[in-house]
Amino acid sequence: MQLALNSPLDMHLHLRDEAMLNIVAPLSAKSFAAAIIMPNLVPPITTIAALKAYKERIMIATKGEKFTPLMTLFFQDSYDYDFLKEAKEYISAIKLYPAGITTNSEGGVSGIDSESLKMTLDAMSELKIPLLIHGETNGFVMDREKEFVPVYEELAKNFPNLTIVMEHITTKDSVEALDRHKNLYATITLHHLLITLDDVAGGMLEPHLFCKPIAKRPEDREALLKVALEAHPKVMFGSDSAPHPQHAKESCGCAAGVFTAPIALPVLAELFAHHDKLDNLQAFVSDNAQRIYDFRPEKKEVILEDAPSTVPAIYDTVVPMYAGKEIGWSIKSVS
Amino acid sequence: MQLALNSPLDMHLHLRDEAMLNIVAPLSAKSFAAAIIMPNLVPPITTIAALKAYKERIMIATKGEKFTPLMTLFFQDSYDYDFLKEAKEYISAIKLYPAGITTNSEGGVSGIDSESLKMTLDAMSELKIPLLIHGETNGFVMDREKEFVPVYEELAKNFPNLTIVMEHITTKDSVEALDRHKNLYATITLHHLLITLDDVAGGMLEPHLFCKPIAKRPEDREALLKVALEAHPKVMFGSDSAPHPQHAKESCGCAAGVFTAPIALPVLAELFAHHDKLDNLQAFVSDNAQRIYDFRPEKKEVILEDAPSTVPAIYDTVVPMYAGKEIGWSIKSVS
Repeated sequence: MQLALNSPLDMHLHLRDEAMLNIVAPLSAKSFAAAIIMPNLVPPITTIAALKAYKERIMIATKGEKFTPLMTLFFQDSYDYDFLKEAKEYISAIKLYPAGITTNSEGGVSGIDSESLKMTLDAMSELKIPLLIHGETNGFVMDREKEFVPVYEELAKNFPNLTIVMEHITTKDSVEALDRHKNLYATITLHHLLITLDDVAGGMLEPHLFCKPIAKRPEDREALLKVALEAHPKVMFGSDSAPHPQHAKESCGCAAGVFTAPIALPVLAELFAHHDKLDNLQAFVSDNAQRIYDFRPEKKEVILEDAPSTVPAIYDTVVPMYAGKEIGWSIKSVS
Repeated sequence: MQLALNSPLDMHLHLRDEAMLNIVAPLSAKSFAAAIIMPNLVPPITTIAALKAYKERIMIATKGEKFTPLMTLFFQDSYDYDFLKEAKEYISAIKLYPAGITTNSEGGVSGIDSESLKMTLDAMSELKIPLLIHGETNGFVMDREKEFVPVYEELAKNFPNLTIVMEHITTKDSVEALDRHKNLYATITLHHLLITLDDVAGGMLEPHLFCKPIAKRPEDREALLKVALEAHPKVMFGSDSAPHPQHAKESCGCAAGVFTAPIALPVLAELFAHHDKLDNLQAFVSDNAQRIYDFRPEKKEVILEDAPSTVPAIYDTVVPMYAGKEIGWSIKSVS
């Protein structure tokens, strides 16, 4: 069996910087036509100069591949209309992190309320810049996303012309919120379609499956899988592929993030084929995002086939999901 | 402030064997008068000969300390009255593991129902041998103990003269079951009084706090803390101190278990003092267990005081809970 995907998009990607950028960026660029690039570097990307320089480094790291980095700024409530009007030329979205909630988010927003963010969110609404949110409170780890849903809903209600993307959703609660607000959208990762907390901590502890938001309950995974497989028009694939060097994952105090970029498309194909929903993969990995972001990627065709392949044990210093294991599909060609 | 404890008991302890036994047994023997020793060696302790030989090795490892290892057999549904009558002289309890549920439990019981276990449990009831159970199903990791509560209840109802100890309980559900059946008791660990899943996976991943059953929700910890601090007459301290070599904890596929034996008494004193319940610690760490097991330990007095001490970073190859951190209390003397 084969599947041709047109211009697959990764709508949530961490490329990091420097040596790590050079390891991981080519792996995404190989199979995706474009990707939304997260701005949580150290320090975070908050100026147009930093953004342009980062984009330049990404272009160098992915040279020779047909790949467009869709840049984002790290949200600050000081961004005003004039700044955003200038920035709009260079960015596809702005990413908001609650302060301290995940890797390199220390400079994020402390109190998320419509009043304090009004100036910036009004400007983004007018300029049609999507707001991407890592939606977690600092509550109990299994409740953080559920507790954040009312924040999403308040923002969606108070800024009806703002496109709000609930990033890497992991719960039934977030899935249910999607249909309550016309301007709420979501990305879903590969790993949250595949694993629950059982896979992280139900047997031995598995650091390479530890991520934020943490994988949740079986009924949550089912809810995510349902909207992904049907390619619900408001959901998009976003890998949240988040590389860390092996030593940072396999030591005490393991860093959060699952590295899936190089395996994402074949494993998605295997998953959709398994559920007899292969026809919906094009919408999930590209068409929905094109419509939501009002963006037309360069044409890039990826042919996938149900030929087993073995996932490398490591990419330089980074251990991918399913390292060393056989997966049922592979990439046949990219053109 | 000082507190004198008379004959503190650890009613759930893993001493392992060989080199590890020689590292950890002296640390428990130093501050506890006696301990219930878990039988999940490789292979598990299922014969009187193996039990006597293991006890002998423990006696050698703890030589010079006033310490009684209270031995247990690894439950088998083939144990009959005659075998148990002979075994009773050497054992304090029998430990039942559902098959494959935790470290070295592969030889455990596959189906736990009153009918198939009747011969053995009737004999244990008549001989007054307590049944200790690791109560987890093989369901979703956060639900395993809750799902097991009906099994506890069925056994308690069908074997009313059998003393059943729900080992290392971690949930509000188990706490609530305690008062519904006169023959249901429980041990509670130190770490489950202190941590929730947040401490294991809410920030970075913390392998040294990963254990089975996994630490649960804040409301579960509150329920455990409540019955421990009031020294509920049916609960006993059982550390479930479970050493693994550092490399097995800090690598991919980290083994389950928290090593608390050497810090248990000072940290318990600090916790009870913090809640102004120091007067109840004697019952929680000794008197309740003496009554439930109908056992009188040798006299051993442990004086604790609120003088800060620093937990060693490692005991030979084993990293303890709170490694390298300061705790508020210490052991002043043992006699």
